[in-house]
Amino acid sequence: MSREELYSWGLKRGITMLRRVKELNITEEDLDTYRNAALQTVGGGIGIALHWIAFTPTIEQQATEEQKKKWLKPAQDVAIVGAYAQTEMGHGTFVRGLETTATYDPSTQEFVINSPTLTSTKWWPGGLGKTANHATVMAQLFTRGKCYGPHNFMVQIRSLENHQPCPGVTLGDIGPKMESNGNDNGFARFDHVRIPRENMLMKFARVEADGTYVQPPSSKLAYSNMVYLRGTFVMSAAQALASATTIAVRYSCVRRQSEMKPGEPEPQILEYQTQQYKLFPQLAAAYAFWFAAWFMTQQHGSITGNMEKGDMSGLAELHALSAGLKSYTTAVAASGVDVCRMACGGHGYSHASGLPALFGGAAALCTAEGENTVMMLQTARYLVKCFVQSQAGKTLTGTVAYLSAVQPSPVAGNRNMSDLGTLVAAFQHRAARMVKHAAMQMQGEMQKGKAREEAWNSCSVLLIKAAEAHVHSFVVRNFAETVQTVEVDESVRAVLTSLCQLYSLYGITEHAGDFLKDGYLTGRDIDAASSHLSAMLARVRPDAVALVDAFDLHDKTLHSVLGRYDGRVYEHLYEWAKKSPLNKSEVHESYYKYLQPFLKNNRAKL
Amino acid sequence: MSREELYSWGLKRGITMLRRVKELNITEEDLDTYRNAALQTVGGGIGIALHWIAFTPTIEQQATEEQKKKWLKPAQDVAIVGAYAQTEMGHGTFVRGLETTATYDPSTQEFVINSPTLTSTKWWPGGLGKTANHATVMAQLFTRGKCYGPHNFMVQIRSLENHQPCPGVTLGDIGPKMESNGNDNGFARFDHVRIPRENMLMKFARVEADGTYVQPPSSKLAYSNMVYLRGTFVMSAAQALASATTIAVRYSCVRRQSEMKPGEPEPQILEYQTQQYKLFPQLAAAYAFWFAAWFMTQQHGSITGNMEKGDMSGLAELHALSAGLKSYTTAVAASGVDVCRMACGGHGYSHASGLPALFGGAAALCTAEGENTVMMLQTARYLVKCFVQSQAGKTLTGTVAYLSAVQPSPVAGNRNMSDLGTLVAAFQHRAARMVKHAAMQMQGEMQKGKAREEAWNSCSVLLIKAAEAHVHSFVVRNFAETVQTVEVDESVRAVLTSLCQLYSLYGITEHAGDFLKDGYLTGRDIDAASSHLSAMLARVRPDAVALVDAFDLHDKTLHSVLGRYDGRVYEHLYEWAKKSPLNKSEVHESYYKYLQPFLKNNRAKL
Repeated sequence: MSREELYSWGLKRGITMLRRVKELNITEEDLDTYRNAALQTVGGGIGIALHWIAFTPTIEQQATEEQKKKWLKPAQDVAIVGAYAQTEMGHGTFVRGLETTATYDPSTQEFVINSPTLTSTKWWPGGLGKTANHATVMAQLFTRGKCYGPHNFMVQIRSLENHQPCPGVTLGDIGPKMESNGNDNGFARFDHVRIPRENMLMKFARVEADGTYVQPPSSKLAYSNMVYLRGTFVMSAAQALASATTIAVRYSCVRRQSEMKPGEPEPQILEYQTQQYKLFPQLAAAYAFWFAAWFMTQQHGSITGNMEKGDMSGLAELHALSAGLKSYTTAVAASGVDVCRMACGGHGYSHASGLPALFGGAAALCTAEGENTVMMLQTARYLVKCFVQSQAGKTLTGTVAYLSAVQPSPVAGNRNMSDLGTLVAAFQHRAARMVKHAAMQMQGEMQKGKAREEAWNSCSVLLIKAAEAHVHSFVVRNFAETVQTVEVDESVRAVLTSLCQLYSLYGITEHAGDFLKDGYLTGRDIDAASSHLSAMLARVRPDAVALVDAFDLHDKTLHSVLGRYDGRVYEHLYEWAKKSPLNKSEVHESYYKYLQPFLKNNRAKL
Repeated sequence: MSREELYSWGLKRGITMLRRVKELNITEEDLDTYRNAALQTVGGGIGIALHWIAFTPTIEQQATEEQKKKWLKPAQDVAIVGAYAQTEMGHGTFVRGLETTATYDPSTQEFVINSPTLTSTKWWPGGLGKTANHATVMAQLFTRGKCYGPHNFMVQIRSLENHQPCPGVTLGDIGPKMESNGNDNGFARFDHVRIPRENMLMKFARVEADGTYVQPPSSKLAYSNMVYLRGTFVMSAAQALASATTIAVRYSCVRRQSEMKPGEPEPQILEYQTQQYKLFPQLAAAYAFWFAAWFMTQQHGSITGNMEKGDMSGLAELHALSAGLKSYTTAVAASGVDVCRMACGGHGYSHASGLPALFGGAAALCTAEGENTVMMLQTARYLVKCFVQSQAGKTLTGTVAYLSAVQPSPVAGNRNMSDLGTLVAAFQHRAARMVKHAAMQMQGEMQKGKAREEAWNSCSVLLIKAAEAHVHSFVVRNFAETVQTVEVDESVRAVLTSLCQLYSLYGITEHAGDFLKDGYLTGRDIDAASSHLSAMLARVRPDAVALVDAFDLHDKTLHSVLGRYDGRVYEHLYEWAKKSPLNKSEVHESYYKYLQPFLKNNRAKL
């Protein structure tokens, strides 16, 4: 499909989806599920989905009751269609750096929305280019000559009559991308566009008619929504890995290749240890991340409940964890999907496999909603703070409690590397050691005279690695606790336990240096881990197809010839190829235009 | 561009290129350069380039003098256009498993080319679908009732008059792929197509008129060409990293983000240690792989010379190294290009960056011309053989000499981690230890009663890692030797030495476990490596732009708005976006078709 066809198709599909959501008359409780579903379709490239997952929730969360009356129902009923316009050409994750301005004019009681520079052009928001007629625009609020930082404003950007851009608004699509090309990720420039004062979303901060700025009661409230949104990214990471492993595991049972033993038939490629080593850790990660997303959802629910009672405790911890989890899981998912793609050999490179599109979708998760490195550094900042508090005698709790309990000198010995408790303890020791090491290194740099910011920058690689180790240890512990407590059949628990061991042992062998460095694990422990891992690969093998089938992904969702449930890969690869646009004619028109005259001319000269 | 437009564009560009090559009347010496250039364009997706890099060389190398008279000049003058048809739907790297048959019929002195199964369909060859009118077809040779394995046959597949497929031949395009969509990677099925006996490429093996099969004088001759071809992949890996780092390093000097110190202007993002840690190891790898490709070219030349004198020594070693190098460098390049893409944040995801296409091109290198895991296992097989020979008292030479010299017990101590000799020795110790460990593990499995093939499979993850360590140590040593011996200005040598240290130290910290496991390096050594690495990141920073400019990649080659030589990124991002097909009209036609009626209907119900 051409870019235009893709956009049309996406719009049609998005509207169909929104129509269904409305017809089903969904409840508040269902909403989360649907938002997740909508988020999934964004991967497929539908700009209008952002109306549902970003624009409408912003009204819900940031508008006053009066504002909700005006915009929420039209948004929910899709009488207006909106985009969430935050990112600019020159600034993404660093929101404080945004350049769009909203300057209050008390004489008319209006805000003037303006794009003062080229780099202030809003850039990337989904649906902004061609679809939306409204947008919540994040802009630096100026009133009475003072800047109060970024705030959200409701701006009508296209006419409801003829869809033409409103006066002073320049709109367009930002052009083709790696994937998601049905989505009109757009740009917007504002040339002194005037909106009523009441169009500032004022649930928290307010600007009075005379231009007085009124502080929000707590700036922490905004964090809660970020935590929620990042949780959806963890779930998306799990789903990307679930899809990719479903395709690759099924195909690896269809594909036969090479000789394992001379003279015997070619084995299914899933019999090769190297293939298991590629796919099973990704399969285990899909489960691990799914459970991590569950944890986030539960914690977010409980913390939101506490916040309504005025209890903010636990929010900072969960916020820090959510940033790191978003970063870690999406990075592992993107590279894991590509491992699955390559494990399908050449056919993985064809769009028939569905894997290039899955990779493009997973790759987008790494830079969207907070760039992954910046996210991980947020987690690191929290961990360093915790370490300092712990040094000062404070007892840490929750997901960081183990940082207080780090042993000063490791107890080496022949550990039982197939015991989940031993593995969890090893991950926690590693993380605690690395957090301590990074924090001490930073303190050392400052003692040598570096400013705090310089010391931070010169230790940032160590800090990132420490934060990754923390998140990794959380994922392992949460996986282990889930398989021990989840209500399932004991035979299912046994399989999940093997998968959890596999995930943990893989992590240890891949990061062996972190465990060996201070002697916490010995070379013999690593050999034991490596040999247990081989055993787990073999043990998971017979259940691998069941473990991917359990994701319950329909062929219509997978869009993969290789991952078909019925295994009839080759027949359908041939049918799929026949539909290539180049096969519409036996001799392509470009032959007559370019090739024929060239060959004829060359033949004549022979 | 639609798939059809892409194909047309590719064909036109490919023909222009071939025309230029002819007009320039290039010499034999120039040929290699041009083939490399052609290989590059394959990344851009031009099927006809395969005529030049695969079809024509096959004639040169595998045809008799008489056959050359018939086909070489027409091929060189592009009076015929050919594809190299080896890979099938069901078999790729495992060439012995190919199913296409060429059965000799002495009664007519013809071969019958046949596709007996669906999976025997030729699948993937570039240019085969719509462009080529000839193909060298790899098929299992049957004569006098016996199969002699895969051989190459010249088959005309389309009419020279009207480009229609020849009788019995079914052709087509295999459909859209991750990248390279201007290339008509094709399929071909043969229904008992008869070709003269003389169409078997008979420089080596022959079939006499009566059907007698005559063995080739040495089966080793074919290896030489494989070594050459894999060398071009190493060069392509280097070029992919060169392009990606050029884009990302330049953009990181244009992009400013966040606050390093409160109140100060936003720094260039290349000032952040985390950004340097992403980009500089890729930059160093580009140089390291370039030097490795040089080594391969020189060695291939010298060994070809020896072979002509009947001396086959060194071929097996170089062949094994070439397989592992192809695997290692292309894998690092593909993931490295993606690191560069993500280091450009959201804009890296836009095709304006040029990085998604570069990634697609690099990713193709991992599964093409021998799947990477299979390639690395070839190297492992050779290393195990060498280890066994070394145990039996044989002194190893060349790139594997160090395997004989592995110290039984490591000498630990505070090593000077900024000394190149120390770093090279550490890499060699690591590789030797891992080869020994994998080989001993395999011997152990066999002693426990496993068949050799089972033992091989159950140790294959260890074997792969050992082979990777061997290749890695080669790349490090070759890099160190090159910077010490290459004739350059001393100031240039100093910069290259820093880059080589950076590359080596990065490898040690990323694989710390391999060096710590037997105590060869200590935790203190790793800390020293890590701190020297930080110092090298800072030292390379001022030269980073010069180091990418030295690749001398023109804007026209890079196709990247972010990587522009003049740094005018944002202006051109805006200009580029305006050209999006969706921006041809202010209101897209799909608005009238889908969105307007939907919104109108919803408004009416409000």
